[in-house]
Amino acid sequence: MSPSAVVPSTVHDGEQDVNLTASAIDHRLTENDQSNGSTNGQNALSSNGQGNGVAQPNVQELNASNITYTFTKEPRDVPPPGVHSIDGSTISTDHMITVAWSAKSGWGTPELKPYGPLSLMPTASVLHYATECFEGLKAYRGFDGKLRLFRPDCNAERFLMSSVRISLPSFPPAEVEKLLLALMAVDGPKWLPRDRPGSFIYLRPTLIGTQSQLGVQAPAEALLYIIATLMPVMDSPVGGMKLHTSPDDMVRAWVGGFGYAKVGANYGPSLLATQEARARGFGQILWLYGSEGYCTEAGASNFFVLWKTKEGKTQLITAPLDDRLILPGVTRRSVLQLARERLSDEIEVVERRYTIKEVLEASSEGRLLESFAAGTAFFVCPVSLIHHREQDIQIPMGKAGEGGPYTLKLKGWLKDIMYGNVDHPWGIVVQEEH
Amino acid sequence: MSPSAVVPSTVHDGEQDVNLTASAIDHRLTENDQSNGSTNGQNALSSNGQGNGVAQPNVQELNASNITYTFTKEPRDVPPPGVHSIDGSTISTDHMITVAWSAKSGWGTPELKPYGPLSLMPTASVLHYATECFEGLKAYRGFDGKLRLFRPDCNAERFLMSSVRISLPSFPPAEVEKLLLALMAVDGPKWLPRDRPGSFIYLRPTLIGTQSQLGVQAPAEALLYIIATLMPVMDSPVGGMKLHTSPDDMVRAWVGGFGYAKVGANYGPSLLATQEARARGFGQILWLYGSEGYCTEAGASNFFVLWKTKEGKTQLITAPLDDRLILPGVTRRSVLQLARERLSDEIEVVERRYTIKEVLEASSEGRLLESFAAGTAFFVCPVSLIHHREQDIQIPMGKAGEGGPYTLKLKGWLKDIMYGNVDHPWGIVVQEEH
Repeated sequence: MSPSAVVPSTVHDGEQDVNLTASAIDHRLTENDQSNGSTNGQNALSSNGQGNGVAQPNVQELNASNITYTFTKEPRDVPPPGVHSIDGSTISTDHMITVAWSAKSGWGTPELKPYGPLSLMPTASVLHYATECFEGLKAYRGFDGKLRLFRPDCNAERFLMSSVRISLPSFPPAEVEKLLLALMAVDGPKWLPRDRPGSFIYLRPTLIGTQSQLGVQAPAEALLYIIATLMPVMDSPVGGMKLHTSPDDMVRAWVGGFGYAKVGANYGPSLLATQEARARGFGQILWLYGSEGYCTEAGASNFFVLWKTKEGKTQLITAPLDDRLILPGVTRRSVLQLARERLSDEIEVVERRYTIKEVLEASSEGRLLESFAAGTAFFVCPVSLIHHREQDIQIPMGKAGEGGPYTLKLKGWLKDIMYGNVDHPWGIVVQEEH
Repeated sequence: MSPSAVVPSTVHDGEQDVNLTASAIDHRLTENDQSNGSTNGQNALSSNGQGNGVAQPNVQELNASNITYTFTKEPRDVPPPGVHSIDGSTISTDHMITVAWSAKSGWGTPELKPYGPLSLMPTASVLHYATECFEGLKAYRGFDGKLRLFRPDCNAERFLMSSVRISLPSFPPAEVEKLLLALMAVDGPKWLPRDRPGSFIYLRPTLIGTQSQLGVQAPAEALLYIIATLMPVMDSPVGGMKLHTSPDDMVRAWVGGFGYAKVGANYGPSLLATQEARARGFGQILWLYGSEGYCTEAGASNFFVLWKTKEGKTQLITAPLDDRLILPGVTRRSVLQLARERLSDEIEVVERRYTIKEVLEASSEGRLLESFAAGTAFFVCPVSLIHHREQDIQIPMGKAGEGGPYTLKLKGWLKDIMYGNVDHPWGIVVQEEH
């Protein structure tokens, strides 16, 4: 038997050992920023056909301008307002966009085609290893008749980040943005009719690992698709959103994990606690982190609190991004930007860790002013109650019971941008086909 | 504005608040043990059509004896030994078994039918929220000509546990075991021919959320399927398995998470680090946990170390199950049982947390004897090297370089049971059709 031994390694770089993941992700994302011009082979990832593969001449980059169109021969009726699903199935628009990818040949031709089922082998990677990520954003029919997307560049960039985190291919995010506009240019006029201003449709870019191979490895084939679906208004539940804090034995995300990426693996495991909370009359889980009980997310939305500090300052607070526990929400980012731009005389805007104990204390001292969840699905949704262990924290819901004054102010500003009441660079107008 | 307030909650039970998840899971699993006879409605989960739904008379339980058979008209050739995939796609046998489930009507009829693609709507739950879990076990062609499964009851029970954890339906595990036997009864004789003793096939029971509805909620429709696939022998890589410890910024699982369940969400997020490690010449990641650097899993296998303690005892050590960080492996459990039954005079068998520092120290003091990964795919695979930060820990591989003596002894005992060299209650003989 040969003796065991510890020997210093000469072939590996100790610094990289420690930060291997972050450096790999940063490298791949940076490559994408370099206008597809990177040719250095120093990154281990570039050699395996993943990454953007620009060093390999036969590997095609995603290119929205190659899109082909096949229009449906069986157009469906647009349901009346308020109807979003049939027999428990979400209603989608007439078309979807698909783009296949393989490690060998890169991105295929984007196809706009009739909405319909996908065919996957039972061995497909996504069905076993959760090699999947998605985005959610809305298209808004403005009061000026125009159709707009809200900051689609932010969603496209996050989509890339999520894809890389889950070992799916990279792509230039601007091409995904163009595909979103292409789908809405075709289906927008019919599915968000001009006589229904103030309504929206929900866009869901999705990327899944399709390689029909069992074995825990990055898939060598993938499918990017974009669908547009009907979704109910969820930002104003009667009496406000009621939250139940997460139980001690259930953690949504953790430092060193993937809570910051919009990957399927963040959602399925959260359903059990959410289902329990709903059976007990609550809308969502307020996810706490660590023994300190840091407030992180409300359901799948970001979570905001407005309180008076002990020193008497009015403060808008939300969890920070730097520990990578929470999703970097587009609505979150927009709320923070607007609050800092327009309310800095009145309130202080803070991103830092804060605990459920601080919220409890603020409440019992009469300093808790407002709270809301922020995300694409729930938009800006006032929170009226947090149930934590054996206590109910009641939160003021404003004069009309529809949310506190700052909540409503921020929500109104965002609505104005989304629905074209004001011109703003965040609202991207879709050039509709007819 | 109404004042904020913290009030004691009268409607909720504080004890349940804290342990909501564990209690819900335990309750659902217990229900299943009660011979489908549970009629109490005290569990919030039983009211929503999930769970086993026995209180609802129209909800069918999974029943393997209802199976229908549709045989393929296009049987494929069995490839020569050593061929397991074509163009990057895993080769499956001629048939698969599928069973559909819905919250309304429960489990449908199990169907054995030709292997082929699944049709899923782009909005299917599994493609967005990772509502998926699976199992892996092998069928072995014995040296006595018989076909055996190894402890399929253990896999069926874990499959149920994983399903409940990811908010998919429950079922009596014994019915899944019967379906495994049914598939092998049909495809076993052809795909594991009697003239190839000592070979195996890999069975993959899978359960996915199929409801075509966007929105973060437990799917009301699901599909259970079982496929049988060809898989290479992976238990004896030349020179042994080489492990690279996980980087600081990448944690596989965490206390309060779902590392103990065989859900897709444990796999996709781990691919990035694995891919990096492979690009640097290592086979798998040795997943460390916490700032202490506890050794947990080797890739997707359990991890064992054999060392001399400082007191001079020979000890087989592996991570414990009680903190729910690691998968409760069937191979792990079997190794521990055999070691305790047959080696207790020679070695001490210990399940406790232990750190990479302890492994390093044992190595530098000449006390590190053997190490292996244990799981269905890799079986019992000797580990020859662990690269941690800037150091290489060399591990003895035995006289023939195929693993240390205890590693080979345990592996041999298991092989004898799997391939029928000895009669043992863990080897379940398949009654083949012809």
